[in-house]
Amino acid sequence: MTTSKTSAQDAAKSVEPIGLDEGGAALDMGELSELLGYMMKRAQLKVSDEFHRCMAPLQLTPAQFSVLLLLDKNPGRNQTEIANTLGILRPNFVAMLDGLESRDLLTRMRSPSDRRSHVLMLTDKGRATLARAKKLVATRHEARLIELLGPGEHKALLGMMAKIAEEF
Amino acid sequence: MTTSKTSAQDAAKSVEPIGLDEGGAALDMGELSELLGYMMKRAQLKVSDEFHRCMAPLQLTPAQFSVLLLLDKNPGRNQTEIANTLGILRPNFVAMLDGLESRDLLTRMRSPSDRRSHVLMLTDKGRATLARAKKLVATRHEARLIELLGPGEHKALLGMMAKIAEEF
Repeated sequence: MTTSKTSAQDAAKSVEPIGLDEGGAALDMGELSELLGYMMKRAQLKVSDEFHRCMAPLQLTPAQFSVLLLLDKNPGRNQTEIANTLGILRPNFVAMLDGLESRDLLTRMRSPSDRRSHVLMLTDKGRATLARAKKLVATRHEARLIELLGPGEHKALLGMMAKIAEEF
Repeated sequence: MTTSKTSAQDAAKSVEPIGLDEGGAALDMGELSELLGYMMKRAQLKVSDEFHRCMAPLQLTPAQFSVLLLLDKNPGRNQTEIANTLGILRPNFVAMLDGLESRDLLTRMRSPSDRRSHVLMLTDKGRATLARAKKLVATRHEARLIELLGPGEHKALLGMMAKIAEEF
């Protein structure tokens, strides 16, 4: 064989099982590691994966959790207000509500004052599920992030995220 | 009518034009504004939207940009290494490479040392497009983020994102 050592190593890696995960010679990330957009996406995916794992016993996605939490704080608000506040597109939101309603976590009712509008309410089961979810998030998910960053950096990071979300 | 004042107000809001965007009485966000996962998602979506806008003249998504940049820094690496390094799932990655190859931005070649493996290289057009893209990102996108946060916070934020991506 006339292959160079580097090519042979590459070839060997390509037939390793999936999930080899940057073993072997790491790639030069160049400007990527200095680009906030790229680094935020990587960090956000990690946090989201971890949230899914933490919430597996309750089968709630991050978006479903945010809807339950918002409904609990703002009972009787209509679909449009909840979707707009969370930045969820209408078709996705309607599908998500169908799922939560079929699991008896919330109910949709026609507004008594405007029959074109739907008002959303948590059910008792929805409230109980939310209470368990909030506890899991606080004790297993957010607590680990605070532990990793330290309380000061965690708070500073929340402030920066709010600034970017609101002002960028 | 026997509706309460609150219901009447809600109903009035629901017939406002779409895109009311939290106008009127803002909802109580409760714990959401203290949850890093939620705030990171909101900030990351904002940054991603802005990246798409900035990159519209070159029609590059954030993921496509990261692939071109990585290939430029690491010529001749194979598909698996690039996809794993960027955390892109294989089916999505193959579709993305098809698109970039059809636009003549990169070429896929069978590895001379292992015919099961594909090696990726930027074309001249790919290199020229990447150079323009890097300039746009630096001057219009990242520069605006640095301006918003200040250079010190921007750097601190990069460090926190790396920490979460690697250690959480």
